[in-house]
Amino acid sequence: MCQLLAMNSKHPADIGFSFAGFRARGGLTDDHIDGFGIAYFEPTGLRLYCDDKAAMDSPLAELVSQTRTKATTTLVHIRKSDDDLLSNAHPFTREIWGEAWVFTHNGKMTIKDAPDSDPIKKESAHYYAPIGDTDSEFAFCYLLNRLKERFEYKPDDQTLHAFLTTQCRFLADYGLFNCLLSNGEWLLGYATTLLFYVTRQAPFGTATLIDINKTIDFAAVNDADDIITVFATTPLTDDEDWQQLAVNECIVFANGQRVHQNLPPAPEYLSIEEGLEIAKNA
Amino acid sequence: MCQLLAMNSKHPADIGFSFAGFRARGGLTDDHIDGFGIAYFEPTGLRLYCDDKAAMDSPLAELVSQTRTKATTTLVHIRKSDDDLLSNAHPFTREIWGEAWVFTHNGKMTIKDAPDSDPIKKESAHYYAPIGDTDSEFAFCYLLNRLKERFEYKPDDQTLHAFLTTQCRFLADYGLFNCLLSNGEWLLGYATTLLFYVTRQAPFGTATLIDINKTIDFAAVNDADDIITVFATTPLTDDEDWQQLAVNECIVFANGQRVHQNLPPAPEYLSIEEGLEIAKNA
Repeated sequence: MCQLLAMNSKHPADIGFSFAGFRARGGLTDDHIDGFGIAYFEPTGLRLYCDDKAAMDSPLAELVSQTRTKATTTLVHIRKSDDDLLSNAHPFTREIWGEAWVFTHNGKMTIKDAPDSDPIKKESAHYYAPIGDTDSEFAFCYLLNRLKERFEYKPDDQTLHAFLTTQCRFLADYGLFNCLLSNGEWLLGYATTLLFYVTRQAPFGTATLIDINKTIDFAAVNDADDIITVFATTPLTDDEDWQQLAVNECIVFANGQRVHQNLPPAPEYLSIEEGLEIAKNA
Repeated sequence: MCQLLAMNSKHPADIGFSFAGFRARGGLTDDHIDGFGIAYFEPTGLRLYCDDKAAMDSPLAELVSQTRTKATTTLVHIRKSDDDLLSNAHPFTREIWGEAWVFTHNGKMTIKDAPDSDPIKKESAHYYAPIGDTDSEFAFCYLLNRLKERFEYKPDDQTLHAFLTTQCRFLADYGLFNCLLSNGEWLLGYATTLLFYVTRQAPFGTATLIDINKTIDFAAVNDADDIITVFATTPLTDDEDWQQLAVNECIVFANGQRVHQNLPPAPEYLSIEEGLEIAKNA
């Protein structure tokens, strides 16, 4: 299993504070040590680093810690798996309609083991195919193949988000599917077990990380009109109002604000303990 | 204009020595300061970094200098352009037939200005489209679109290299087209002005960089059966036997050795001065 972190904001923002706590889970406070990756949608393009090393040991993760890179959307992944192959490190990226899209996933799925007659295999690899051998990358390629088959040109965001919700629900039938997806303009989150978010905006307060001893005063580092939403597998701070995604909820943020939400009828919320237990047994 | 560097070898090898000299051209001995990028095909996957900063200033380039990363194929680019957009930084990558391919280019082309009725525009964007706005990325997407249209599955290498030679010749009609292309197994070089290579193998000698004060004894760092070929826009050392590609020559290396060569009848070789002058006036 792995853990996810992401940020989407109105203005380019630095993920440094949240990353400091999250990074610790890659070898210090938790054992997601089989890879690390980060994707920044900067104002002039995508910057993406992947490493087969643990976040706590990775020179790239150290560079990330020392650099105040500002981006409107940032996605981070720490990996726990049976292998540490570089080709299996998240985030994954592909180009669609001339845009760079980035995907990162947490969960165990059964796509690779599905028979060739299964819908997910039958309709698969026309435009996109996985390079590594993870179910995660297969799921990303599946999403993109469906999109490109259905839409020759990029549809409007509302159509796109509704279509993506349907496809994520389909993928969720194949196992644990907590994912984050972005084209740099919007950030989509989908959960089948654990995914939380918090929106930071004026009046800004302070926050204290759970994993390491660090407190920040957001008022000192943000402008009054900043709006920043952070996603994480489990909350990174113990003094903010983190919202949980329901099982099979799909949510999209742009400019730090929610622009799409699809909540199942009678939404169900797992406790963190239940979610971690499911992950452990997967 | 930009400059290119690449290495292809029988066993994973460290590009550090060649990179030390090449990096200097990104702000110290030359002015290719509008971006830097490197792609390593490591044994377990592709590692790719792009930066909008000059190689001499880039923290990523510094990390590359300090890390002895070993790869069977490595491609490096230093950029000189009118912009320093991250989305325009080389090397570019796309997935085709489940493989990561990497492309880097030096030269000024006229693809973007071509009318929509031009063959290069008419047949363009079905599978792949550029994300940034360089002719270089457009040319890469053009190559991949032709490949994917022509071959549903990856053909044998001989067929592939012959097809790529033809497509490179076609692209060379649109301006200066010095490029390097790799899928990690082989490394293709095509030149319309300047591109040189040297093969280092037993008995290994010493080499001295032109751009900085550094000498290496290859016998001390290589095994007897190592074979390593290095490409560069102009030679990096002044005491090795660099071979020049003829105008419109296409050459492919695998395991450090030449596996394909297509030389025009009556091959023409530009002097370095002529080549640099053409680049300057482009």
